Amino acid sequence: MARSILPTHVGFIPDGNRRWAADHGLPKEAGYEKGIAPGLQLYEQCKKAGINEASIYCFTQDNTKRPSAQKDAFREACVAFAFEIMRRGASVLVVGDETSSQFPQSLTEFRHRQGVGMKVNLLINYGWEWDLAGLKNGGLRSSDVSRLDLIVRWGGGRRLSGFLPVQSVYADFYVRDEYWPDFKPQHFDEALAWFKTQDRTLGG
Amino acid sequence: MARSILPTHVGFIPDGNRRWAADHGLPKEAGYEKGIAPGLQLYEQCKKAGINEASIYCFTQDNTKRPSAQKDAFREACVAFAFEIMRRGASVLVVGDETSSQFPQSLTEFRHRQGVGMKVNLLINYGWEWDLAGLKNGGLRSSDVSRLDLIVRWGGGRRLSGFLPVQSVYADFYVRDEYWPDFKPQHFDEALAWFKTQDRTLGG
Repeated sequence: MARSILPTHVGFIPDGNRRWAADHGLPKEAGYEKGIAPGLQLYEQCKKAGINEASIYCFTQDNTKRPSAQKDAFREACVAFAFEIMRRGASVLVVGDETSSQFPQSLTEFRHRQGVGMKVNLLINYGWEWDLAGLKNGGLRSSDVSRLDLIVRWGGGRRLSGFLPVQSVYADFYVRDEYWPDFKPQHFDEALAWFKTQDRTLGG
Repeated sequence: MARSILPTHVGFIPDGNRRWAADHGLPKEAGYEKGIAPGLQLYEQCKKAGINEASIYCFTQDNTKRPSAQKDAFREACVAFAFEIMRRGASVLVVGDETSSQFPQSLTEFRHRQGVGMKVNLLINYGWEWDLAGLKNGGLRSSDVSRLDLIVRWGGGRRLSGFLPVQSVYADFYVRDEYWPDFKPQHFDEALAWFKTQDRTLGG
C-alpha cells in the first residue's frame, strides 16, 4: 500500500513536565504551565504543515491520583490550552470521562466536536479502560477519533502509556529525549522527515 | 511503583524474514524457515534468564492475504516451532481465530494452554479486531495473556502492527534494526539491560 508522505493524524505525548521543573529547581507542578506555549507553537506548526488531525495526551484518570497541587496545575494548563486553540479556530473534541469530578466542567460541551478548523482531540481525564468499555455497548468511547499514522512522544519514554490503544495499532512511534517544555519545531520537523522513511505494509 | 529488574512478560515481534531472504538472493518465502532456529535460541535464553511468559507474533489474519507460497511457508514454520518448544517443555497457548481455514488444524488443541513449563503464547491467525471483539461478550479473546512489560521488535519497524493492543498499553518498546533471521542473543541481553534503565510510573 502506498503511503502518503504526510501523516493524516498525529498523536502527541508531551511528557517530562515534572522532570523539567525539577531540573530547573522548581516544584514539580510548575512544569505544566511551561507546556502551554510549546503546545500552541506545535499547533501552529501542524496547521502550517497541513496535518488534518492531532490528538494530544493531556491527562488520564490515573494522573488524577497525583498530589492536588499537580492536579490543579495540569487541569488549569489543559483548560487554558483548549480555549486558546478554539480561539485560534481549531475544531476541538475532548475525549475523557466527563461524569467524574476530575473532568473540567468548562470543557463539557466539547465532548462533542465544536468548530470547523483543524481537528484537535484533547484526551482529558481519559483512560484506556474507560475507552474500551464502550465496546460492550457498540463502539469505542473515542470512536470519533480516527486511526493514528504517527505518534510523537517527548521525555524519552518508549511506551504508549495507555494512549488510544485502538487508534495506535499501526502508528509509527517516534520518541524524543527532550522534556516537553523544551520543545522545538525542529523536533516535529525531524519526526515528519523520519515518518517519510518508514515502510508501511499494514500486515499485507 | 517499584519495578522488577526482570520483565515478567516479554512480547516478541520477529520481523524482517522476507527482507532477509531478498538480501540473500532467495525468494521471499525462504525467509520464514530461517526464523525457527533463532526462535528456539531465544526461547532457551528466556528460560535461562527466568522470564515467566513470552508472547510471539507469528502471523495475523492480515498476513494470510499474502501469496500462498509465503503463507504455506510461515504456517509451516510456526507449526514446527510450536511443536518443538512443546517437546522442550514449554506451556503453550495459541491465540488466534481457530474457526478459519487459515488456522493450522494441528494446533487447535493449544487454543487452551497445555503443559506446565515457561508460558509461551503464540499469536497464530491473530487479529487485534478479532481479539477486541471478545469484549462484547465479556472479555478479550486473549484474556489468558497477561500484561506485557517489554516488547522487542526486529526489522526496524517502530510500530506495534496490531500486536496485543490491550496487553501492550504500558509495555516498553525496544527495536532492533537487524532482520529476525540475524537474531543474536546479545540483542535480547541488550533489551533486558535497556529495560532496567526505564522508569515506570504507570501514570501515577
